[in-house]
Amino acid sequence: MGFQTVYREKVDYINQGLAFLLSQRESHPTILDAIRYSLQAGGKRLRPILFLSAYELALGDCSKAQPPTLKQDPILSMSCAIEMIHTYSLIHDDLPAMDNDDYRRGKLTNHKVYGEATAILAGDGLLNLAYEVMLESLPADPNKQFGYLKAMKVIAHSAGISGMIGGQSADIENQGVNSDESMLSFIHTHKTEALITGALKAGVLACREDKEVLEAVSGYGKAFGLAFQITDDILDLMGDLNQLGKAPGSDERKGKLTYPAKYGLKKSQIMASQYIEEAVSLLQPFGSKSEFLISLAESILVRNR
Amino acid sequence: MGFQTVYREKVDYINQGLAFLLSQRESHPTILDAIRYSLQAGGKRLRPILFLSAYELALGDCSKAQPPTLKQDPILSMSCAIEMIHTYSLIHDDLPAMDNDDYRRGKLTNHKVYGEATAILAGDGLLNLAYEVMLESLPADPNKQFGYLKAMKVIAHSAGISGMIGGQSADIENQGVNSDESMLSFIHTHKTEALITGALKAGVLACREDKEVLEAVSGYGKAFGLAFQITDDILDLMGDLNQLGKAPGSDERKGKLTYPAKYGLKKSQIMASQYIEEAVSLLQPFGSKSEFLISLAESILVRNR
Repeated sequence: MGFQTVYREKVDYINQGLAFLLSQRESHPTILDAIRYSLQAGGKRLRPILFLSAYELALGDCSKAQPPTLKQDPILSMSCAIEMIHTYSLIHDDLPAMDNDDYRRGKLTNHKVYGEATAILAGDGLLNLAYEVMLESLPADPNKQFGYLKAMKVIAHSAGISGMIGGQSADIENQGVNSDESMLSFIHTHKTEALITGALKAGVLACREDKEVLEAVSGYGKAFGLAFQITDDILDLMGDLNQLGKAPGSDERKGKLTYPAKYGLKKSQIMASQYIEEAVSLLQPFGSKSEFLISLAESILVRNR
Repeated sequence: MGFQTVYREKVDYINQGLAFLLSQRESHPTILDAIRYSLQAGGKRLRPILFLSAYELALGDCSKAQPPTLKQDPILSMSCAIEMIHTYSLIHDDLPAMDNDDYRRGKLTNHKVYGEATAILAGDGLLNLAYEVMLESLPADPNKQFGYLKAMKVIAHSAGISGMIGGQSADIENQGVNSDESMLSFIHTHKTEALITGALKAGVLACREDKEVLEAVSGYGKAFGLAFQITDDILDLMGDLNQLGKAPGSDERKGKLTYPAKYGLKKSQIMASQYIEEAVSLLQPFGSKSEFLISLAESILVRNR
């Protein structure tokens, strides 16, 4: 199967998982609507796909592991939880007090539709829901839980103040400030790369604790995450509203510290290519098992959203 | 030891625990400052104390359980996590888009000191941190984890869209609306009582799954939570800024659905007394083991903050 077909299958799996997990919830209708709106707005599902693919890479030698199903499955729940965490961060990021964006994934942002108060709660609710679904899906037999708990710890750490939220905080504080390269690097390794690498490491740990695979996906995630952030910055500068699903040029308007602003467009493009090359080289030793993750990395360089 | 002394000891234990857990974190300094500011603003620590007291009630017959210590202890982490969840909900609640309050616990609200963007992130960071510290404190031996995981599930569920966040959503939607009694009941059982009952049930489950104790604390929590919310509404109406630590009269200004607004002051006071009586009666069968929780319930009727 070609890369696009496999990607599409994984997206379908995650979308079905999200719909399934939401269908099991009872709550006040407004907050459920607001959550569903942003969660089902058609994201790329990149982070859960990285989680699933790392799980599959480790699974190559993991005879005990079962393929994920659509019912109380920790792999399904963890991949959906990662997307919930990512989506909550977008909802809060778009708020007027943060980036004040009107469009996201080609649709009005959550607060534009539901108002700021509900958008704040929808974000809170999604973050909490991520942990609810992960905890609820753990197998009853404690001896089968250990890898999953390690994976959950990595996800939690990468999403928190030592990871993504720490990066967001630095990002906000450095808007309109001519900060140095080390700050740009801090922001991007935390804001974007932490959850990407976290998803990959969690995928491996959910299957088995294999040092070699863990090290490879960590290096891959680091390079992938930086390349992804650079292409994100470039798209924000050059992209098209229709393809991008959000207004381009917003980083510049906010005085954000970006790669093109710091290094220029040409050098940024070269840096992204170099990072992807590095990411690919780290997975080549795994042969055909790593084919999908290699193609995924290469696809970042030609992304248009 | 008298009730006040025991209460004070528990507060100290939780405050030391929070300081200990925060000292172990690396992050961007601003977000850590903002989190520390709200977490160490001197709250009543009511919810973690309920958790600890329910744990101790169940511990009466639980020979295997160890008294909590200040290092990687699941009981310490869970009690602190409950306070983190409560504090994040206050930070977000106080935001201009939500209740727009300037004072909390006698100090300026988080967004008044750090700005809205950082206050949103501080709340997000605290919620995520609650799960980080709980996950990190789980014993390595999977056979010792089971009760803790059940407790974590209850905490997560009570804090989420089927609990506290669902109540907040309904609360916001019904401001300025003359809603019926069933809506008032939905809001308060979810917004306030869910996390209170969740903390109590989690305390029991963290020790052992005892149906009798679990049922008793659930009933106690339900009655306690409603009495607590009624006295909260009354304090908002009648309280003093200095004692209360926040501006009184804010519910009325916002057109919030409260007990005094719906039933009048006198009837609300009677209702609170009746709920406390009910809470107390449910724990009396446990004799001296439930003394503290009984005194705690009775103290609600004379609270001034």
